[in-house]
Amino acid sequence: MTINVGIYLYDKVEILDFAGPFEVFSTASRVNARRSQESDNLFNVFTVAEDTNPLFARGGLQIIPAYSISEHPEINLLIIPGGIITDELTKNHIISWIITSSNIANITGSVCTGAFLLAKAGLLKSKAATTHWEDINDLRSMFPDIKIKKNVRWVDEGSVVTAAGISAGIDMSLHLISRVTNKDLAILTAKQMEFEWTINP
Amino acid sequence: MTINVGIYLYDKVEILDFAGPFEVFSTASRVNARRSQESDNLFNVFTVAEDTNPLFARGGLQIIPAYSISEHPEINLLIIPGGIITDELTKNHIISWIITSSNIANITGSVCTGAFLLAKAGLLKSKAATTHWEDINDLRSMFPDIKIKKNVRWVDEGSVVTAAGISAGIDMSLHLISRVTNKDLAILTAKQMEFEWTINP
Repeated sequence: MTINVGIYLYDKVEILDFAGPFEVFSTASRVNARRSQESDNLFNVFTVAEDTNPLFARGGLQIIPAYSISEHPEINLLIIPGGIITDELTKNHIISWIITSSNIANITGSVCTGAFLLAKAGLLKSKAATTHWEDINDLRSMFPDIKIKKNVRWVDEGSVVTAAGISAGIDMSLHLISRVTNKDLAILTAKQMEFEWTINP
Repeated sequence: MTINVGIYLYDKVEILDFAGPFEVFSTASRVNARRSQESDNLFNVFTVAEDTNPLFARGGLQIIPAYSISEHPEINLLIIPGGIITDELTKNHIISWIITSSNIANITGSVCTGAFLLAKAGLLKSKAATTHWEDINDLRSMFPDIKIKKNVRWVDEGSVVTAAGISAGIDMSLHLISRVTNKDLAILTAKQMEFEWTINP
């Protein structure tokens, strides 16, 4: 069984917000393949953007997205990273794509200000959620029906999971691996990345 | 004063090995600009590769390098990330470029198996160094004159600094910020990234 992990990219996406989850899921695949002698495809990780033209992440890293929102493999695990999301919030076709894709996906996760895009898509309505500590107040005032949680690495609402800022996306991704496979694999993945996994208290 | 941070990329570079330092230095610039009301350019972070053709990081992320090794801005801080370095170790022109660039740079840092490239370039001769826990024995047998350190996040030998595996590159980059600017900025950068900075004991 291969789980397709689709990571949404856009101009001025925060680098670690998408690179953290990308690293976690692709490392987990390698660790799992070595451990179980299976082929290297527990997770198939790929990027999806508005189109496949090169884009610039925040800070200037230039990336070529693997797929466009109009043509990509079915996504089982959808990750929406944060960054400068001002433009994305105004794009109705992107919000529609998030709605459609999250309906098909088993789990939709956001990192940092990616939570604003989930909120705009209606995915956080009356749910608990978190975002970067600096954006908590904005999220609350823009979407007053969200139950905002502070000082947590992630909030798991079943089909929707939101992470705190930037590096918390790594902790959330390890949690998702624990949820969809097993905790052993998440712990081995963190060890392989030499990452100290911060689990919610 | 702007410090040019050049990050070397190659096919099958480990994503977090380069994305971690890229995030740290570009976030530090933003944090510094906000704090000091200076313009946003304490660090100018860019990627350099053999040429500027698109390349694939390990796991399949496609990147367009900003510069080639034959034409790039002067590098003050050179970062060599890890990944599948087998091919790179055999490329004499890459090893020569690392030697030349590290002579010009104030500090050369490696992440994970990037240490093998520094060793091949002669930068670790009779120095202390570290790498990913899984590669410690290989580094020792290939380069017996290196004083290998285990269970540290990074080893600082002045002009050459080596980090342990994957996410330890984030800790090392925060250390480098502390060294070339001040510890306050490193702490604020970690806070902005919601990253728990692991400092060497």
